[in-house]
Amino acid sequence: MKKKIETSARRTFIQQSSAIGAGLFMAPSISLFGQTSQPKTNMDNTIASKGYAGKDVNGTMVSWNFERRSVGDNDILIDIKFSGICHSDIHTIKGHWGPQKYPQVPGHEIAGIVSAVGKNVTKFKVGDKAGVGCMVDSCMQCDSCKNGEEHHCETTGMVGTYGVPQETSPTGITQGGYANNIVVTEHFAIKIPESIDLKYAAPLLCAGITTYSPLMKANFKKGDKVGVVGIGGLGHMAIKLAVSKGAEVYAFTTSPSKIEDIKSFGAKEVIVVNSSKDLTPMKGMLDYMISTVPYAYEMSPYIDCVKPYGSFTQVGQPVNGELTINNFNMIFNRVNFNGSLIGGIPETQEVMDYCAKNKIYPQIEIIKAEEINDAWEKVVNKDARYRYVIDAATI
Amino acid sequence: MKKKIETSARRTFIQQSSAIGAGLFMAPSISLFGQTSQPKTNMDNTIASKGYAGKDVNGTMVSWNFERRSVGDNDILIDIKFSGICHSDIHTIKGHWGPQKYPQVPGHEIAGIVSAVGKNVTKFKVGDKAGVGCMVDSCMQCDSCKNGEEHHCETTGMVGTYGVPQETSPTGITQGGYANNIVVTEHFAIKIPESIDLKYAAPLLCAGITTYSPLMKANFKKGDKVGVVGIGGLGHMAIKLAVSKGAEVYAFTTSPSKIEDIKSFGAKEVIVVNSSKDLTPMKGMLDYMISTVPYAYEMSPYIDCVKPYGSFTQVGQPVNGELTINNFNMIFNRVNFNGSLIGGIPETQEVMDYCAKNKIYPQIEIIKAEEINDAWEKVVNKDARYRYVIDAATI
Ligand SMILES: [Zn+2]
Ligand SMILES: [Zn+2]
Ligand SMILES: [Zn+2]
Ligand SMILES: [Zn+2]
Repeated sequence: MKKKIETSARRTFIQQSSAIGAGLFMAPSISLFGQTSQPKTNMDNTIASKGYAGKDVNGTMVSWNFERRSVGDNDILIDIKFSGICHSDIHTIKGHWGPQKYPQVPGHEIAGIVSAVGKNVTKFKVGDKAGVGCMVDSCMQCDSCKNGEEHHCETTGMVGTYGVPQETSPTGITQGGYANNIVVTEHFAIKIPESIDLKYAAPLLCAGITTYSPLMKANFKKGDKVGVVGIGGLGHMAIKLAVSKGAEVYAFTTSPSKIEDIKSFGAKEVIVVNSSKDLTPMKGMLDYMISTVPYAYEMSPYIDCVKPYGSFTQVGQPVNGELTINNFNMIFNRVNFNGSLIGGIPETQEVMDYCAKNKIYPQIEIIKAEEINDAWEKVVNKDARYRYVIDAATI
Repeated sequence: MKKKIETSARRTFIQQSSAIGAGLFMAPSISLFGQTSQPKTNMDNTIASKGYAGKDVNGTMVSWNFERRSVGDNDILIDIKFSGICHSDIHTIKGHWGPQKYPQVPGHEIAGIVSAVGKNVTKFKVGDKAGVGCMVDSCMQCDSCKNGEEHHCETTGMVGTYGVPQETSPTGITQGGYANNIVVTEHFAIKIPESIDLKYAAPLLCAGITTYSPLMKANFKKGDKVGVVGIGGLGHMAIKLAVSKGAEVYAFTTSPSKIEDIKSFGAKEVIVVNSSKDLTPMKGMLDYMISTVPYAYEMSPYIDCVKPYGSFTQVGQPVNGELTINNFNMIFNRVNFNGSLIGGIPETQEVMDYCAKNKIYPQIEIIKAEEINDAWEKVVNKDARYRYVIDAATI
């Protein structure tokens, strides 16, 4: 019932906002409808939000009402329509990457409709499609920020979309996209072209950019052989993106049941890996390789598949980040190993526009909010095909 | 006593060889003086050799008489004068890199005088200075071999100077340089310029080339900041080589007692590392970094010292080759991690000629053969300053 009230209140607000055009649009007393009893801010006009949060390291997601900061002059308020589930959400909430503050709403593949804009906002107007990816702030002063590499901000570091201490947040930390709305500085919001469905746009904001950025840096030529290890949410986007850029793609999976799907994504060959022996025929064959495997694994025989002086990028982040590398392999394979973290805002916009224009869509399964815990289990068990996307209307 | 007989027999032989000029010079019945009772070859004219061998995985080096293959048409026989001690010798004999065949004579920094040449030999004549490094054979047919990257031979792999099964060797495996002579295909012998002392030439054949090759590939510019981690036999050569090529060198050591030496090698700054905190000021400062540390260590804070998109090369080989890399660091530091294994024969000749011309000499301590076991202990305990070189006359 409360949700209905909120929704209708917001709808009214949006209509009002649209009616009066650009300027500072604050949601009038929407916070009155929120459940959070102790907003940690004394600013007026905090935004009532409803989401799914982890309450502790066990990682069970439960419904939670909380407050977002008010819409500042450079902020937009997005009514979230769809929110992708990323393996990082699970790792984070379960404390695999370090201790967390709870309750915490994960989610950094966020797509929705702008429902309010601050007075200085120029990039969006109410009613626009907008997205939020893996970060919501950075210093904007340092060289990295100025060069569109906000994720490598040299002063404050990037502020992740969830779980990062943030003074302006009534809950004390950033809260992510498993929710019905989000407030974000316009700079960190991505314009979503009209031509792409919001449900397809959402996964581009992490799975898309995280694979697109290193693929573009790899600078492979048409016809080059690109390997993709781990064909889940990120991996299947890596295949589609590399194929669209002219690569001959070799997909490495431990799941034989994915073979047909993978071929439909455009891969030239699927290598089902039961043991490192299965990798031997590929030794030194690839110009470039990207691994999305989010757990520790025997990495060296994969790296060996790359040609001498080629590169291998690990984007999947294992528990504690620790990976074992065998230097006997490295001195012979002569491969450059590197890691890659999402991409900057300009590049995130680029992959969004590129995918919209070229109709490169993630293969998704829409779920209800109440199915989040099941979906997480399936993601861990490699049963996702290939990205779960939460219908935010069910939150 | 036996040694004296051998020596004089060989001297006689050399004089004969010299007298009759080029052609096929085989040591007549030198093998009669050898101690090996079961030569595994039925060829005549095997070469009696005396060396220091490990007899088992405990790695105690003991005097040992054995046979080398006869001098083939493309071979030269080198009277060894000096032989460097490399940490790899210790790792190998102690089985740290895999099980070994014993007795095994280590040593792959070999410098001496040519005492016999096969009839097809053109690169050397008797009396020339010659050296042998880390390999003594490869297929010579594959692309890598043809391109002077014999160490990356694609068919047989490179044949290491010691411990590698070899049909032509009477002992069944290759035997290295802690000995009074060696037989080697001329292609795998390095010409040592007249102007450089053999004792200085020896360490260039592993410590020199192993650091020179990745330094050259790093392609740094004059004034670029180059870091060197681990200042022992390899590391001190890396400093000297990088300085001579115009780099501003930052040396990282755990031994405060090495500071003055390191400055004398030309390093701009010495960072004494007690904990990873000592590395923080260097974060993102270096254009390139090379690590010679031959044990597992906390590598990621060192890698963090390199600028984004720079490279870090690990040439030291830990026990079992295993190193832990933290991908949280890698996704933020954006450094390319790679390994490097010695260099090809042309590049080994290049570093020899370069060091001779520019008077870049390793800092060595000459030891007697009977001191080898002590020296090994000092190498492991980081007490070497900076390369022990065995005077082969004492073997
Ligand atoms: Zn993600
Ligand atoms: Zn910044
Ligand atoms: Zn060596
Ligand atoms: Zn070869």
